[in-house]
Amino acid sequence: MTLDNTESAKLKELDLSCIWHPCTQMHDHEANIPLIPIARAQGVYLYDFENRAYLDCVSSWWVNLFGHCNPYISAKLKEQLDSLEHIIFAGFTHKPIIELSHRLLELLDSKFGKCFYADNGSSAIEVALKMAFHACAIQKKKKNKFICLENAYHGETIGALSVGDVGIYTQVYQPLLLETLKVKAPSGENFAESLESLKTLLQAHKEEIAAFVLEPLIQCAGNMNMYSAKFVQEAVKMCQEAGVYVIFDEIAVGFGRTGSFFAYQQCGVVPDFLCLSKGITGGYLPLSVVITTNEIYSLFYAPYEEHKAFLHSHSYTGNALACACANAVLDIFERDNVLENNAILSQFIWKKLQVLQEFGFVQNLRHQGMVFAFDLGGFEGQRKGLEVFNAGLKRGLLLRPLGNTIYLMPPYVLTKEQASYIVESLVEILKIFVDKFANKTKV
Amino acid sequence: MTLDNTESAKLKELDLSCIWHPCTQMHDHEANIPLIPIARAQGVYLYDFENRAYLDCVSSWWVNLFGHCNPYISAKLKEQLDSLEHIIFAGFTHKPIIELSHRLLELLDSKFGKCFYADNGSSAIEVALKMAFHACAIQKKKKNKFICLENAYHGETIGALSVGDVGIYTQVYQPLLLETLKVKAPSGENFAESLESLKTLLQAHKEEIAAFVLEPLIQCAGNMNMYSAKFVQEAVKMCQEAGVYVIFDEIAVGFGRTGSFFAYQQCGVVPDFLCLSKGITGGYLPLSVVITTNEIYSLFYAPYEEHKAFLHSHSYTGNALACACANAVLDIFERDNVLENNAILSQFIWKKLQVLQEFGFVQNLRHQGMVFAFDLGGFEGQRKGLEVFNAGLKRGLLLRPLGNTIYLMPPYVLTKEQASYIVESLVEILKIFVDKFANKTKV
Repeated sequence: MTLDNTESAKLKELDLSCIWHPCTQMHDHEANIPLIPIARAQGVYLYDFENRAYLDCVSSWWVNLFGHCNPYISAKLKEQLDSLEHIIFAGFTHKPIIELSHRLLELLDSKFGKCFYADNGSSAIEVALKMAFHACAIQKKKKNKFICLENAYHGETIGALSVGDVGIYTQVYQPLLLETLKVKAPSGENFAESLESLKTLLQAHKEEIAAFVLEPLIQCAGNMNMYSAKFVQEAVKMCQEAGVYVIFDEIAVGFGRTGSFFAYQQCGVVPDFLCLSKGITGGYLPLSVVITTNEIYSLFYAPYEEHKAFLHSHSYTGNALACACANAVLDIFERDNVLENNAILSQFIWKKLQVLQEFGFVQNLRHQGMVFAFDLGGFEGQRKGLEVFNAGLKRGLLLRPLGNTIYLMPPYVLTKEQASYIVESLVEILKIFVDKFANKTKV
Repeated sequence: MTLDNTESAKLKELDLSCIWHPCTQMHDHEANIPLIPIARAQGVYLYDFENRAYLDCVSSWWVNLFGHCNPYISAKLKEQLDSLEHIIFAGFTHKPIIELSHRLLELLDSKFGKCFYADNGSSAIEVALKMAFHACAIQKKKKNKFICLENAYHGETIGALSVGDVGIYTQVYQPLLLETLKVKAPSGENFAESLESLKTLLQAHKEEIAAFVLEPLIQCAGNMNMYSAKFVQEAVKMCQEAGVYVIFDEIAVGFGRTGSFFAYQQCGVVPDFLCLSKGITGGYLPLSVVITTNEIYSLFYAPYEEHKAFLHSHSYTGNALACACANAVLDIFERDNVLENNAILSQFIWKKLQVLQEFGFVQNLRHQGMVFAFDLGGFEGQRKGLEVFNAGLKRGLLLRPLGNTIYLMPPYVLTKEQASYIVESLVEILKIFVDKFANKTKV
């Protein structure tokens, strides 16, 4: 044990001397947040060098679907490694990506016709923004503006960040960002005002607007703000009637996360662009895809000399190893009746979570498919979520609250026993806080 | 053979019905450019379904260093798959990335202190741009502008594209791009005017300029424009004296491509940010890193409440599988004396290539390390490079000219025999064109 501990301590020290972690105030690692070296991962658990297990309640930033080191996905990836690891994806192609593209299109509305690949969610959003803008340009429409929702998050590159509205990510970079039009974010069934503001924007600016970008059903990084499918339906209809393209960011909400295979399938409308990433490889490798219609595709399809080609590319576009993982993920969806089982598991977790209503400071307990969230109410400006994070670690839970919003977004292979443990632990954690949160609780 | 041919034909048809390829006018696949399904790859060769081999003269978009399905890298990746495939990289860490970061810093000037990871080259550029801008903002300097070179290429996302200047990629998107200041591109030893224009820009605008971004030694996507280390040296000194950060894009030119491990090491100066990708995983998986100084890092290092954190992230940041490949790549560099052997191979290829000087239309034959290029002169507006591409395929060569610039950027494991075959084939290909290029040749 001492030896392991020493190795862990050494690794931590070496990490902090060499690495700048993403989405982290590194100063926090001095006292507020431990940095934990992980030795191995299996199923829903990460294991540190002292063999302590951490239950990955956030699917490692919402990417893992079927557990870490999933034997089936790993086997398929190893198999792929024996024939083709990666080749240039212009002028050349390969079976794993053809199979993947065909299978994705089979799962989607027939309006969709073509898959364009990239490496991460931000890049997918950039592709969709550029494609929508470019499609307008080809049609001689000068449409340089985009609409997004307030409280939206679509990634971190300049274009993706421009259609975001979560201040901690965007504020300092404002002078670099594209001007975008913002629609009041809907929340639950409260969306009348949002529709009204969208309508006003479209009336005034539709000739300048290339596309409306949104995460259907849940603004995930926007503190898991869940909202009605009716808003999505009405908003999309309005845009499409106004000749404005619609881009759905299903990077986090796709692949079964909201209950249906894709979130848009609950909304009764079909967007012009669908951006997927995260769960696509089951949490193994970076891969993203923008799926669009043959109508859009055909605008760009012309003799070379007309200079209409969409020349976007990334070196590793169409990576065969990532595609092999993605095909394995689709195999598992087919083989294991994942959506049906998730529906049962989701109800189970949701019922269990009701116990948290006992805590007066637990506000807006909500769920959608395999996403569950609540807010610690009444503690604005205090890092209560951080305290929950640290208390979670002590009980072997990897929670990563968004500010004071606590959420669960577990891998789909979570067992009922594990789910029960999470909820019981949350009760214990919140009990610890009863004193600190004095007068904020009914317990 | 018939069966294979049928499978290939079916795959091609299915691909074209489902996939929109990067950096491709899809219409070209009707007649101008074949789309080739690849069944497997090994060493420097891709093999189609009829077992025809294509020698990968462009390292599959400049990513492959040690051959396809390299046994050592594959073994290391499989080993990694047995313990840890991917975990969230905020609050948690793992051995492969700590090892990689430490090794990268050991290879670099001591001025560098921290590694910040992303997934692809474009994202690395975005990180560097945001970090440079943000570092200025923390110092209360409102610096919203960037300088880049004319003819530059740094990627495809809005921020990265904004510091690019290759018209086919940027032109249509101008209304979406950041305004940037451009310096006349140096070429070979012609750089006096470039330095002069940089000097003028700095004098007029240094208070507004956050950073100067450039690819040291070669503008790769800018038709392999090679230029003097002296320009880099003088330009960097000027910027640093003017209080302007310098970002080196070594995405294509790093990892031994220009002869030294990193291109900047030939220039006698050290930038503030170094962006790496492509070769970092030996052509296996998407991974990128921005390496910067402890001085920059410390500007962001502060109690959380000061809101100075660099909150950029991508879901798959710090992917353990990609890091395992990257460590394997560094192992091979150490084990096989790669730089020394490349120096010999580079001279061998360079000598061989002199035979092309016989063709009058072969202009500006040039090389730098393991990059070799020449232009087909006098054919402006004609797609002669495309003809070379197609003729190359017939001889089993995967060339992918940049317009009418033909280049070689082969994997480092190319043998002298293979190199000789490439050059002999180029001679034959160019001979075919002698008639077509009448009066343009001395042959």
